[in-house]
Amino acid sequence: MEFISGVNRQEDITVSELLSGDYIGRSVKMRGAVHNVRQMGEISFVILRKAEGLVQCVWEEGVTGFDIRDLKEESAVQVTGRAAKEDRAPFGVELRLEDIRVLSEPAQVLPLAVNKFKMNASLEAKLALRPISLRNVRERAKFKIQEGIVRGFREFLMSQGFTEVHTPKIVSRGAEGGSNVFKLDYFNKKAELGQSPQFYKQTMVGVYDRVFETAPVFRAEKHNTTRHLNEYVSLDFEMGYIDSFEDVMAMETGFLQYTMALLDRDYRRELDLLEVKLPDVSRIPSVRFDRAKELVAEKYDRKIRNPYDLEPEEELLIGRYFEEEYGSDFVFVTHYPSKKRPFYAMDDPEDERFTLSFDLLMRGLEVTTGGQRIHDYRQILQKMEKRGMDPEDIRSYLMIFKYGMPPHGGLGIGLERLTMRLLGEQNVREASLFPRDVSRLDP
Amino acid sequence: MEFISGVNRQEDITVSELLSGDYIGRSVKMRGAVHNVRQMGEISFVILRKAEGLVQCVWEEGVTGFDIRDLKEESAVQVTGRAAKEDRAPFGVELRLEDIRVLSEPAQVLPLAVNKFKMNASLEAKLALRPISLRNVRERAKFKIQEGIVRGFREFLMSQGFTEVHTPKIVSRGAEGGSNVFKLDYFNKKAELGQSPQFYKQTMVGVYDRVFETAPVFRAEKHNTTRHLNEYVSLDFEMGYIDSFEDVMAMETGFLQYTMALLDRDYRRELDLLEVKLPDVSRIPSVRFDRAKELVAEKYDRKIRNPYDLEPEEELLIGRYFEEEYGSDFVFVTHYPSKKRPFYAMDDPEDERFTLSFDLLMRGLEVTTGGQRIHDYRQILQKMEKRGMDPEDIRSYLMIFKYGMPPHGGLGIGLERLTMRLLGEQNVREASLFPRDVSRLDP
Repeated sequence: MEFISGVNRQEDITVSELLSGDYIGRSVKMRGAVHNVRQMGEISFVILRKAEGLVQCVWEEGVTGFDIRDLKEESAVQVTGRAAKEDRAPFGVELRLEDIRVLSEPAQVLPLAVNKFKMNASLEAKLALRPISLRNVRERAKFKIQEGIVRGFREFLMSQGFTEVHTPKIVSRGAEGGSNVFKLDYFNKKAELGQSPQFYKQTMVGVYDRVFETAPVFRAEKHNTTRHLNEYVSLDFEMGYIDSFEDVMAMETGFLQYTMALLDRDYRRELDLLEVKLPDVSRIPSVRFDRAKELVAEKYDRKIRNPYDLEPEEELLIGRYFEEEYGSDFVFVTHYPSKKRPFYAMDDPEDERFTLSFDLLMRGLEVTTGGQRIHDYRQILQKMEKRGMDPEDIRSYLMIFKYGMPPHGGLGIGLERLTMRLLGEQNVREASLFPRDVSRLDP
Repeated sequence: MEFISGVNRQEDITVSELLSGDYIGRSVKMRGAVHNVRQMGEISFVILRKAEGLVQCVWEEGVTGFDIRDLKEESAVQVTGRAAKEDRAPFGVELRLEDIRVLSEPAQVLPLAVNKFKMNASLEAKLALRPISLRNVRERAKFKIQEGIVRGFREFLMSQGFTEVHTPKIVSRGAEGGSNVFKLDYFNKKAELGQSPQFYKQTMVGVYDRVFETAPVFRAEKHNTTRHLNEYVSLDFEMGYIDSFEDVMAMETGFLQYTMALLDRDYRRELDLLEVKLPDVSRIPSVRFDRAKELVAEKYDRKIRNPYDLEPEEELLIGRYFEEEYGSDFVFVTHYPSKKRPFYAMDDPEDERFTLSFDLLMRGLEVTTGGQRIHDYRQILQKMEKRGMDPEDIRSYLMIFKYGMPPHGGLGIGLERLTMRLLGEQNVREASLFPRDVSRLDP
């Protein structure tokens, strides 16, 4: 009988191993994609693309027995070469090739120069060829940084006593109702795709006190803007036993502080590649919704047209205001009008036209919505009645209040929006591997 | 201007803090749900339920000024009490109450005794009341262990150079086609819910060499069995530059080894509560599909009815065989027949009726499907042609082969099935927070 007893040590080495210095002067094997071949007569440069970065290899006429003219870009290869210090090479190390073994070959030449540092292509063209345009080192660096944001979210929240949960995406009724939902037939029952894990994460506060989830959400909004996706990854948390909704804002600030430090430490290569400057999150200003509108109206000489709503233009100006006045990329806008928030939002007992809720804006774009939720059964029934909602429709959700829930609140962060703003991109599609918008369902 | 500068220190303490020993003899505050009240005359025991476990509090007549008869189970409270060692209390520590402050109260008494150690309720009854039955300490311990499995998957793969990705769940065409897909209308285009991130994770191997994803998948199978869910969490990875599909099995074995050690270290309380014995994964036997059928036919005196398929009964017997003969809870079954595997599976060059693929069985249940994939453009086109498939339907996917892909393979693990087997549960619904089956769409 054969047995499998754990990860096999492969004969090739990683970039980290190469950089350890132990291999200088020695012959090593590395595997990767042929990113680029530059033929310079008797010498050629072969750039190997690996997950960790690009490795420069030098081919010399007569040394390898491999004809460099046979080497195709995007082939997968295993090279053997002697590691040597070379200041002009990407990591300060290059491989002097002794052998090239081709593991697989493409059938055609790439239609896009993915090996250029900056691809000369429109967003439209990049997205149409997404499966290969992502091979560009700048493109993939963006999503490596995105990985770091999600990692930071989970690691930080676990350190704060949160439990990770997995809740269903096919639901009988959306958290916020309305028309912006994708509908589907579920064995002859009417179902929807979850717009948010709202009901489930609140439910799980009754179980674990503090919970989080990182999962896709779905919104059938017909907006075709630079800020909207129809499917995106939502970073959600919900916490019980709060004193006020400011506890939720404080937890989000803690997450941002932890994550910026994590990115700075573990994603430095990608940040440098994209020339990303991490924002200062040591303190984030917080301003009431109505006050924010006034500040912007005063400073930028603007009329307040609708006191109960924020226009995208106003969001941008609020971002600009706090950048100019306080040097902050972020600002919490609090106390949103009740009529703009879902029924489960807790109204401010001091003025019920407003809620104990907030948005976090980053450079003028909403990246988070959160707040305190109603926890009292009678109170939530009253609010539903006022809005003409039928409790029977969401009986399982209301069960948690009927049988007891602690004071609690939470938030949802749009991963792609946060990534987009961090990277300084102008279109949220740049921060989604395979974006879904009104006209895009493939790739 | 107000500023938020990070997580607020709350005035209450956690169970870990209580157990640090620093608080013995001191008056502390704790918050939690009233799990149980036992009135014994002049003394009452109040059991506080917190995420980390149950805390025993002792109420004594005349000390607190709070009438214990007013305290309702499932109320959220903040108690103040002096910490004292007490061997008979859950953590060896109890709080002698000085004050009880009620933060919120239920409107009704629970319809189910969630505070019993074992709830006396059918699965059906537990699921109907899922939002509150999960508050039972044994129920919630299951999903805490599930958290550990997912954590182990991510942590181990990151240590092995994998990158986490987030791929879309609304797709234009499923990875494996067929009728078992949920269909939906996507802005007047025909869309489906992803049955697997297969195409996308292979695509991302061309970008990051090694990738993983932990996300929901959707299967519209009409089976109503103890093993099937219509939505579940799939732990997927895909790795490039493999020498053989055994590299994938070795990586999975490494994941299991890492995760069992992690559970043993960080989830000991939950494992003990549920009396879970962790399986030995130091080595996992591997047997060919055809050989496994023979072994079982011989030992259990059974006819081989269909040489190209495994019946659930046969899977169970294979599990039993390897338990009895090798003391192993796991077995890799390799070289599945080609006609039972999707078109992208790599056929065995030595016998094209079989594939370079495997399932991992745990105690006779398939918990993983994986294998090596075709990476050559012409080869995948040929196989599609043989199966009568139209390349035009999956043009974006085929793009990765046309422009070059390394040899690669991967797998998908059903999180709920793995959890179910680990916990010794008989129904996969026990291992899903809010299971989706043919008749269940709510809660």
